[in-house]
Amino acid sequence: MGAVKGVILEGNPEARIVDITHEIPEHDIEAAAFTVLAVAGSFPAGTIHLAVVDPGVGSSRKPLLILSGDQFFVGPDNGLFSYVMENDAVVYEVTNTEFFRQPLSQTFHGRDVFAPVAEALSSGVKPDTLGKRITDWVTLPSLKPKKLRDGVEGRVIQIDRFGNCITNLTPADIRAEGIGSVTQLKVGKNRIESFRRFYGDHAQAEKTSFAIWGSAGFLEISMENRSAAELLKVKRGERVLVVRTKHGRTVS
Amino acid sequence: MGAVKGVILEGNPEARIVDITHEIPEHDIEAAAFTVLAVAGSFPAGTIHLAVVDPGVGSSRKPLLILSGDQFFVGPDNGLFSYVMENDAVVYEVTNTEFFRQPLSQTFHGRDVFAPVAEALSSGVKPDTLGKRITDWVTLPSLKPKKLRDGVEGRVIQIDRFGNCITNLTPADIRAEGIGSVTQLKVGKNRIESFRRFYGDHAQAEKTSFAIWGSAGFLEISMENRSAAELLKVKRGERVLVVRTKHGRTVS
Amino acid sequence: MGAVKGVILEGNPEARIVDITHEIPEHDIEAAAFTVLAVAGSFPAGTIHLAVVDPGVGSSRKPLLILSGDQFFVGPDNGLFSYVMENDAVVYEVTNTEFFRQPLSQTFHGRDVFAPVAEALSSGVKPDTLGKRITDWVTLPSLKPKKLRDGVEGRVIQIDRFGNCITNLTPADIRAEGIGSVTQLKVGKNRIESFRRFYGDHAQAEKTSFAIWGSAGFLEISMENRSAAELLKVKRGERVLVVRTKHGRTVS
Repeated sequence: MGAVKGVILEGNPEARIVDITHEIPEHDIEAAAFTVLAVAGSFPAGTIHLAVVDPGVGSSRKPLLILSGDQFFVGPDNGLFSYVMENDAVVYEVTNTEFFRQPLSQTFHGRDVFAPVAEALSSGVKPDTLGKRITDWVTLPSLKPKKLRDGVEGRVIQIDRFGNCITNLTPADIRAEGIGSVTQLKVGKNRIESFRRFYGDHAQAEKTSFAIWGSAGFLEISMENRSAAELLKVKRGERVLVVRTKHGRTVS
Repeated sequence: MGAVKGVILEGNPEARIVDITHEIPEHDIEAAAFTVLAVAGSFPAGTIHLAVVDPGVGSSRKPLLILSGDQFFVGPDNGLFSYVMENDAVVYEVTNTEFFRQPLSQTFHGRDVFAPVAEALSSGVKPDTLGKRITDWVTLPSLKPKKLRDGVEGRVIQIDRFGNCITNLTPADIRAEGIGSVTQLKVGKNRIESFRRFYGDHAQAEKTSFAIWGSAGFLEISMENRSAAELLKVKRGERVLVVRTKHGRTVS
Repeated sequence: MGAVKGVILEGNPEARIVDITHEIPEHDIEAAAFTVLAVAGSFPAGTIHLAVVDPGVGSSRKPLLILSGDQFFVGPDNGLFSYVMENDAVVYEVTNTEFFRQPLSQTFHGRDVFAPVAEALSSGVKPDTLGKRITDWVTLPSLKPKKLRDGVEGRVIQIDRFGNCITNLTPADIRAEGIGSVTQLKVGKNRIESFRRFYGDHAQAEKTSFAIWGSAGFLEISMENRSAAELLKVKRGERVLVVRTKHGRTVS
């Protein structure tokens, strides 16, 4: 990480650099993709997000430069930016090696490729100068949940350090299904019986798992002061069902 | 953390943001309170300290804006700023929701409440505009030790990552008691027999625990190259006694 | 760490501060020395590298200010800057206590000595004003490998968080020996049979350890998706041999 910042400041001493997180597990592209999605919306227009989880460094995987919404993203083509690219993305493969750091290593493109490209962009170089438009890139499974006859099927896309299980279900997904009044929520084999507006909402029983709208805008399965993932034996990818029932509780 | 920085830079692109620590254990308000106390004195006048350990997010716990000495503090009313507020604090409950980020989540006030309030303050908005003065807030047990007939009783307020046990005893506390010449120091059931001026002070036996004046100005119980907390089975809150004796060693 | 930044900004509000790493194990001077070496080359001329792994704080170990290449380094004289000082260094012992923070603690020179000295330097104070030239300092074992009659002997200088074993062997070391065509590579008792250009280079067998040129310019012993250090039972300091053989594989 340190070297990446040095390369950026070498080229653009005025660049503002802020650290986003130091908690992505090794090689965990999906965790990084979720973090990119969760924070991008909070940054000013024109921000350049440099992210490097890059097990394929040195191979033929492409270096990408992406414009999505009003934010730029620079990093490897391995799904890392998949979630922010779902709705809207102008994507460039970075091909102009003139901008790369020399000597170019085959083991640290964060420093030798992505940092100088992010720096060039911050210094006003146009994406067209850095690479060429492409229409095909690596994607993770979509964030869009699946519509069912009587509800919607999502999945757990991230488990945070508190053990909260973050799903891909948004308020819009649930409203779109015409559900939201009387529904049943299941995560794997567990039925989630209560919904909270905030983590410490004691109107509900304290010792059970509950659903809550998390900070990135997705439905989370959570517990108070312990890990819901551990108790419910939920792993990333676990199926989440919201179905209409005659008798049940409201989810939102 | 990342999103918090984005919100600040969105409103005030000139804001200087520095990270203080990435090591506060989950939900550990006392550890955060100690860190706030330990670093605040090193920052320039007018610094805004944004701290968010916030298990009560979304509940009725108040958002606070505090002026103590020449430093500002922004965060939840749960004791997090208790130690810096002990001697001197002008305290506001933040009530002006115009400054909050919309939509306001019930799960991430760091991003939606505290970051925009800190940003407003950094941009010159007056505390009176952001909220109203209050005189009552959540406090942790005081840092002031208890006077005894023949000494002073303190406690362990923090155990750092080296296992050093940081007490709430200052040189002034000990001098005020008229002790400091011939005293006995006990932490729980352990008598601490030696005092060092610095960690590697080999004038004393190497394998025993020792007392030392730590970097935040408090007496610490420490060991060389191992955890004093573990060896002495000391936890946060453990009683620390400094008493006058006829025979004994000096503490300072 | 936080307090160090406060002291710098107190003296020089315009200072640009970036974090390099939060991953140095406690008291691990060699790991810090490697990190300093690995990142220094990526920073702009005139950068001041402040590094504090300082088990001898408060003792008679000297505070240093170093100019090596076009970079400055500030910190304790315990080997931390040993690797960047090997080829070229102008070294000062910091003796001008006027620049120290008062009251000067004996337990946190990062805040009280090194931060104010780094700040003074960033504000234009000359090294000659801060201290006096010295010609003797603490060094770690040299990075230079040993020449053998039929090859070169190096050692493992760092094991990274992926378990890659980073050696002190550079392309120049190996070329200088006239080897590089037909050689044999051994780490401890393990013979390394394959060489990769990048981590995911599948031209070679997947389950075996391999050698690779790492990002800091040194030969690394690595494995795909697991720790080479663990599998090969390699610790820092382990001997690495590159020898000419009649039959064998190329290392570079």
